[in-house]
Amino acid sequence: MKTSIEVIPSGGVTTPKGFTAGATCAGIKKKDVPDLCLLSSEVPCAAAGLLTQNRVKAAPVIYCQQRLQNGRAVAVTANSGCANACTGQPGLADAAEMAALAAGLIGASPDDVLVASTGVIGVRLPMERLRAGMGRIHLSPEGGGELARAIMTTDTVPKEMAVRMGGSGVVIGGAAKGSGMIHPNMATMLGFLTTDANVEPGFLKTALRQAADLSFNMTSIDGDTSTNDTLLLLANGLAGNDLITGGSGEAAAFQEALNRVCIHLAREIARDGEGATRLIEVTVSGALSVNEARQAARTIVSSPLVKTAVHGGDPNWGRVLAAAGRSGVELVEGKIDLDIGGIRLLEAGRALAFEKKEVAAVLDREEVAIVLNLNLGNGTATAWGCDLSEEYVDINSKYTT
Amino acid sequence: MKTSIEVIPSGGVTTPKGFTAGATCAGIKKKDVPDLCLLSSEVPCAAAGLLTQNRVKAAPVIYCQQRLQNGRAVAVTANSGCANACTGQPGLADAAEMAALAAGLIGASPDDVLVASTGVIGVRLPMERLRAGMGRIHLSPEGGGELARAIMTTDTVPKEMAVRMGGSGVVIGGAAKGSGMIHPNMATMLGFLTTDANVEPGFLKTALRQAADLSFNMTSIDGDTSTNDTLLLLANGLAGNDLITGGSGEAAAFQEALNRVCIHLAREIARDGEGATRLIEVTVSGALSVNEARQAARTIVSSPLVKTAVHGGDPNWGRVLAAAGRSGVELVEGKIDLDIGGIRLLEAGRALAFEKKEVAAVLDREEVAIVLNLNLGNGTATAWGCDLSEEYVDINSKYTT
Repeated sequence: MKTSIEVIPSGGVTTPKGFTAGATCAGIKKKDVPDLCLLSSEVPCAAAGLLTQNRVKAAPVIYCQQRLQNGRAVAVTANSGCANACTGQPGLADAAEMAALAAGLIGASPDDVLVASTGVIGVRLPMERLRAGMGRIHLSPEGGGELARAIMTTDTVPKEMAVRMGGSGVVIGGAAKGSGMIHPNMATMLGFLTTDANVEPGFLKTALRQAADLSFNMTSIDGDTSTNDTLLLLANGLAGNDLITGGSGEAAAFQEALNRVCIHLAREIARDGEGATRLIEVTVSGALSVNEARQAARTIVSSPLVKTAVHGGDPNWGRVLAAAGRSGVELVEGKIDLDIGGIRLLEAGRALAFEKKEVAAVLDREEVAIVLNLNLGNGTATAWGCDLSEEYVDINSKYTT
Repeated sequence: MKTSIEVIPSGGVTTPKGFTAGATCAGIKKKDVPDLCLLSSEVPCAAAGLLTQNRVKAAPVIYCQQRLQNGRAVAVTANSGCANACTGQPGLADAAEMAALAAGLIGASPDDVLVASTGVIGVRLPMERLRAGMGRIHLSPEGGGELARAIMTTDTVPKEMAVRMGGSGVVIGGAAKGSGMIHPNMATMLGFLTTDANVEPGFLKTALRQAADLSFNMTSIDGDTSTNDTLLLLANGLAGNDLITGGSGEAAAFQEALNRVCIHLAREIARDGEGATRLIEVTVSGALSVNEARQAARTIVSSPLVKTAVHGGDPNWGRVLAAAGRSGVELVEGKIDLDIGGIRLLEAGRALAFEKKEVAAVLDREEVAIVLNLNLGNGTATAWGCDLSEEYVDINSKYTT
């Protein structure tokens, strides 16, 4: 039984029942822009999280690791402008204080508040400003958009979505930020997901991991995995649905709706990569396994030479093959088909004649689809990334100066 | 007993006794520049090679794989402007014909001629031009410089070196090209080494691998491993020295001299990376093993965020730690020391106060040294790379157009 999924216009993290959010300009960033926010649920939530695999972990990541043990949370506070990473014991104390300040504001236990940060590494949070700022945050059921803006760094647009499941009427919302140091290995830079569904905590974690594997873990902007990757999912149960467990009838529909939100946010992160002018979608099929397909797709979408070729509208398809070849997956050159923007360039390993201008035109579109069929097995996977432009270099040459 | 190593001014592949080389403008490239060359020895040589680990292998790489089995060669022919990769069976026939043409010119067996190509992937070699061009090559003992120029693609300068070992008087010479798609995994894009030493073929291969592991395999320009990586070493024995074997007294001195030539060429490749304005040298010490040190050093030197920070003179040292953290090696944040250009920025994981201008000034030098001590063990390794500039994007956005 397939349940319909409806996209809710202008939906976000406060679209599911019982969630409020708000943000303020705390002065953590130099400019007068929102940089501190809070997301809160009326009632305690089942909570699941995926955190960076980078061995250098930011203080808020270490804090969340501990807090997520009991699978419960009621709020999340986050800031941009400072990653609170490589800040040692004082940084951990700052993260804990940030949680305590948020807990005070909403009358919750600090143990039920999660924390996330993004920004420059190696700098302490300006705690005085943060204390003052937290007090100014006004929570509202329309605050999701403010939150989505307050977590932005070099992002140019906020990234939000919400969907409603047919039948149960359960709503899932989300907000994320990306832009640079994006090559998630567990989660994305920052992503917050909310739902009013009543979900068993064990299944919530499984579902989150599966959705992340199909979405955030398949995006790459620059191959650099962040110290702060944090993806959180809070489920408050206010939809009043029967408990969704791994074996229940609604499990597959919930998973599909969650995948939908995560894939949308992941695509938006890739599209809005630092300096990006195009979204690149790489699909590898016919691999020996799904894992091999994932590996090849991620390697191709991460290749600087593929990314610059797309940027310049240069139909240099050999770079796609070279990237697949170095990805480590099984392949036989003489079996490979390659399509770029729907134009077949390679069939059974043989280069076909093509019009340079025609291929250049499809590379110039807002979304560029690269489809590689290895014709060896049934493994398929899709990865998202962006072109590499002079602006990426410009942005990252002077990030702290 | 340490043997002295003397660098020979303007030395290259024809500096060792009995080697000649030459090049011509065959018209493989659009512009009227040298693009076809030949390196030849008066007498048969012991030969060793390291070839790309990319699963998509260019025709000349497959050809060399077969030819190197017997550990013997007398000549190498190479071209730039066309990689002869992804060209299937006809490409293999072209590579074999290229060897046969060269063999005809010097009166050798085609089986003793090695072949290497570099340039655009997926395009056949223009065999008519190549046939005509080969006939125009004039070999001379001063031809090493011509060869070094003929293998260049987007390289801006030729890369050559020769050294003489004290005592035996053995000479080792080399030429290499790099520039883009440089993240060698066995060898570099193209590197040719010659020596007049008398060396046992088994040891020759071991020595080449060890030298490559310390040099070419520790460089990265853009993380993309080429389909054409080829590193060849020919030893003709004309120095008349006693046979150097793995256990002989001269083995260590020969290894040291070979390392010296390879490290010099690898550094020059990194310095002349596409769009590069600076050489970055990353040394990781205190790792649990040499392999872990290698892995961390390579990851840091490959990080686009470290590369852009160096390009912009931005003292954003947190990116070095983030790269080390994602490299997968064992580390404890609280133990790490970090020096950039001799300025200590992190001690035992604690950020030290620094003058932004001072660090920006060392990042602005021609060579930038990044030294990370993990303080966990005795593993040390050095890797070389370059900054990432707007020009890299510009060059690679229009490579084939």
